[in-house]
Amino acid sequence: MGHMPTAVVLLSGGLDSYTTAAVARRDGFAIAALTFRYGQRHRLEIDAARRVAQALGVTRHLVLDLDLSAMGGSSLTSPDLAVPRDRPLGEPGIPSTYVPARNTIFLSVALGWAEVLGAHDIFIGVNAVDYSGYPDCRPEFIRAFGSLARVATRLGVEGAPLMVHAPLISLSKAEIIRLGLELGLDYSLTLSCYDPSPAGVPCGRCDSCRLRAAGFAAAGVLDPALHAHPH
Amino acid sequence: MGHMPTAVVLLSGGLDSYTTAAVARRDGFAIAALTFRYGQRHRLEIDAARRVAQALGVTRHLVLDLDLSAMGGSSLTSPDLAVPRDRPLGEPGIPSTYVPARNTIFLSVALGWAEVLGAHDIFIGVNAVDYSGYPDCRPEFIRAFGSLARVATRLGVEGAPLMVHAPLISLSKAEIIRLGLELGLDYSLTLSCYDPSPAGVPCGRCDSCRLRAAGFAAAGVLDPALHAHPH
Repeated sequence: MGHMPTAVVLLSGGLDSYTTAAVARRDGFAIAALTFRYGQRHRLEIDAARRVAQALGVTRHLVLDLDLSAMGGSSLTSPDLAVPRDRPLGEPGIPSTYVPARNTIFLSVALGWAEVLGAHDIFIGVNAVDYSGYPDCRPEFIRAFGSLARVATRLGVEGAPLMVHAPLISLSKAEIIRLGLELGLDYSLTLSCYDPSPAGVPCGRCDSCRLRAAGFAAAGVLDPALHAHPH
Repeated sequence: MGHMPTAVVLLSGGLDSYTTAAVARRDGFAIAALTFRYGQRHRLEIDAARRVAQALGVTRHLVLDLDLSAMGGSSLTSPDLAVPRDRPLGEPGIPSTYVPARNTIFLSVALGWAEVLGAHDIFIGVNAVDYSGYPDCRPEFIRAFGSLARVATRLGVEGAPLMVHAPLISLSKAEIIRLGLELGLDYSLTLSCYDPSPAGVPCGRCDSCRLRAAGFAAAGVLDPALHAHPH
């Protein structure tokens, strides 16, 4: 165990980041999980991230506060804006749930923590197939961040390789789910909904719920979160 | 006034960011100032940022909390690590005051806010001449961040130009001070010290104090902060 390299993994409590962390573990990394309390509408996401981190047996779990709701501009962090429901999936354009520069911000903090830990690897669960059209989920974004990381840090300046891994980026949601089930994951622990009830029941109508439901249907399995014991 | 474009300006309360904001104002921008409470040893920096923002007549001033001290790794945010004193200026290597990925993190949040405001311009007061050797103060870092910004955001995807301005990057500290004095700045409002007394008296011995003192000496003017009325 002492010889396992550490990777910083962005962990939200959703299905994609849980699967991403499991890939990092499969690939031999000790996981330093990083979760943000960033003013999202519900704190249930943080609870899900803690459950998932525990199930994964992470080495460290850091939950950082960064109140992006003070910036405004997203229905995911602004009580004044409604989360869109029943939006046609695959519709062009960037929906109001987009949090400006969110993945750039999250990866930047991950980069700082990686530097503190002496870690050369960062994992992020972005996906550019069954996704909502956010600009910071695309392969060109991940590549550009990798280039930045190599000039932005002490590790990079000293010539160490710094890798940003996005193992799900070209998988469909069904492929992500099948991968996670092969890795033994319990998706009942996760929460994907943008706008759940106070008790944590998914709305079923936001983009995230509908992408998830379509993914489970295409994978031919039931979503255990819909039939789970309450947490 | 209604036709002035907005620029997001990172404002710390130090001499460099104050001068940078004044350049943005001179160049016709309305200033949206962004300051971080990031776990630095003293909150006097925030007070200085508020004084400076008021003196500049900024349009908006957002002070965001992001507790980077939870990550550890820097003497600037860790009470357990001493801020180095009397370190030879120009000594090679990155000192312990370096906060890992700090400018990457700050620029990322600035990028998000710029997107919310519809601003195409970000200003940062980094300097690669009289500086402490931090990797994220170099021109190649600023260029890499600009490339990232253009693929990371809705504005960038829609083809809008996004510029990261670092107007001080190739100036000496003395040149920065002369520029600021030409622009009518009152440097008694600023605080540069990494480790001031509780009353805000600079230590005179950290890198930041000594770079500042050398800059005022080379510019041939007295530092008004050393002879200022208490705030």
